[in-house]
Amino acid sequence: MTEISTLGEFGLIHHLTEKIKLFNKSTVKGVGDDAAVLNYKDKQVLVTTDLMLEGIHFDLMYVPLKHLGYKAAVINFSDIYAMNGQPKQITVSLGISSRFTVEHLEEIYSGILLACENYGVDVVGGDTTASLTGLTISITCIGEAEKEKIVYRNGAKENDLICVSGDLGSAYMGLQLLEREKLVFEGQTENVQPDFTGKEYILGRQLKPEARKDIIAKLAEKGIQPTSMMDISDGLSSELIHICKQSNVGCRVYEDKIPIHIQAVAMAEELNMNIVTAALNGGEDYELLFTCSIDDYEKVVAMEGVGIVGHITKPGLGMHLVGREGEEIRLRAQGWNSLDAP
Amino acid sequence: MTEISTLGEFGLIHHLTEKIKLFNKSTVKGVGDDAAVLNYKDKQVLVTTDLMLEGIHFDLMYVPLKHLGYKAAVINFSDIYAMNGQPKQITVSLGISSRFTVEHLEEIYSGILLACENYGVDVVGGDTTASLTGLTISITCIGEAEKEKIVYRNGAKENDLICVSGDLGSAYMGLQLLEREKLVFEGQTENVQPDFTGKEYILGRQLKPEARKDIIAKLAEKGIQPTSMMDISDGLSSELIHICKQSNVGCRVYEDKIPIHIQAVAMAEELNMNIVTAALNGGEDYELLFTCSIDDYEKVVAMEGVGIVGHITKPGLGMHLVGREGEEIRLRAQGWNSLDAP
Repeated sequence: MTEISTLGEFGLIHHLTEKIKLFNKSTVKGVGDDAAVLNYKDKQVLVTTDLMLEGIHFDLMYVPLKHLGYKAAVINFSDIYAMNGQPKQITVSLGISSRFTVEHLEEIYSGILLACENYGVDVVGGDTTASLTGLTISITCIGEAEKEKIVYRNGAKENDLICVSGDLGSAYMGLQLLEREKLVFEGQTENVQPDFTGKEYILGRQLKPEARKDIIAKLAEKGIQPTSMMDISDGLSSELIHICKQSNVGCRVYEDKIPIHIQAVAMAEELNMNIVTAALNGGEDYELLFTCSIDDYEKVVAMEGVGIVGHITKPGLGMHLVGREGEEIRLRAQGWNSLDAP
Repeated sequence: MTEISTLGEFGLIHHLTEKIKLFNKSTVKGVGDDAAVLNYKDKQVLVTTDLMLEGIHFDLMYVPLKHLGYKAAVINFSDIYAMNGQPKQITVSLGISSRFTVEHLEEIYSGILLACENYGVDVVGGDTTASLTGLTISITCIGEAEKEKIVYRNGAKENDLICVSGDLGSAYMGLQLLEREKLVFEGQTENVQPDFTGKEYILGRQLKPEARKDIIAKLAEKGIQPTSMMDISDGLSSELIHICKQSNVGCRVYEDKIPIHIQAVAMAEELNMNIVTAALNGGEDYELLFTCSIDDYEKVVAMEGVGIVGHITKPGLGMHLVGREGEEIRLRAQGWNSLDAP
């Protein structure tokens, strides 16, 4: 293990950034000056940022550092795709405590750089500093889009279809599984042997989420221009409420249409939890939620990996989940409750 | 005092961002979607980021929250000016511990928004989250510049003049003063009454630095295109070494040319410190260091608030400070030592 002090500030930054490869023409100058220089020509520039703190957003006891770096990058890409754009650059700021070695930082960086390679994104800057306490990761992502292609949250119209990619609730059930295994490890429950067989999917959804670049590509390919779009980071309920409020509309989503993976169902049963609640409020799935005109119905139905879960209504009709028996349940915004939690 | 939990995540974000005014045409869409949307047309885009952590970069015992917000924003603007650009947008991410109230956050935000108003910059996004430990502030700044006007660190040429704006070492001496008063307050020294009379300048330099927008404007006005430029955040020595290494040149700076404020001199005497060392290695002055052609000599001499401190040499001659007796002392990169410190 290499103590960070052996490299010093500038040595450390050089060490971590020397492996960076640049993929994009829009990156004129990356790491190494007061600011990065980008050239977006006639495209519009998209900017999003996320702050991840140890103990709040991740627990190093069960999250490998490489996965953490990968996820920290990918969740930012996801926000850019949710605008119907393409992520192009990120800046990476790390606050690290004295228990970290150079090898630990290399692990985090290797995850970030792997994500960048997979999605064609350049690391163009950042800041690395000591932290008196836990690990801090702050990533800002810059992306591009043609002006007329950008999809905001406020364009949903009455009768529009509500669509969701992939499945929901798996990341949350993966987290529950990890939390349980942590308790086992700490000896706080009976001695259940950790066994992840048959649970690989939900674990992967929590530890190594992917952003739906493929869905954005398919939408373009099929000529579907969504009327509104978001990525599902806080849970379907919460995101739908954002879209409805900003678009001044109501919505109906159908319980039996919500896409749920069989491993998430099994995990919920094992833990005696309600999987629909997890799918609605669990968060961290990083799937795309979008609305589109009913004229696009045939195209959407033909899209692999996308399901229609409901439709947009007049604002007066409110925002509801329609249960299997036809009962209407009002959607509530849970958000993540990190601010109240610990 | 208002508990943050009374507003909830979305309420808090709304509360903090509703007062944001937008100044720039390039801001198409600010806070409120997955990403901000910017339009830079034919300009190049500059991106810089800074991470500030409690206990490392600031001590809430003597730094008022409003000043902290102001400084966190301004030090990012400074990086954009150091590229000869104009800052236009920032994203603001805050990690806050449970001891913070809504009023505390309003204080931080009011400082950030004041800085934005003074410099004509828009807050376009961010992230607010709980922190298990101290306060975390991560700001990313986006700015613009014409391609041919951007000044990098690698363009210094032999015989170029080395110029510095304002004065150096004051921010560091202000920090020493605050540290001393903190010890007094904690009863760790004899009972010296805190007295800031005659020390207002160095205190202001530490607590409420400004970025040299005015110098950038004057350079343009006078038609001076620097060959290299940086802002002085880590100390003159360290920044000169960056410029020399990236430009593959050497330098000579003259001790008697280094601009030092009389209050900084007095404070150094009082504390038995070497003010030249403070000016060379102290950091946080956020002045501009630039090199320009000797052909610009007359123009630079006529610039108020800028001094010529030395000149660029062949790389073989190394990087040296020339003392008052003509002795040559090799410049060393101290950087900040936060990574080793605590």
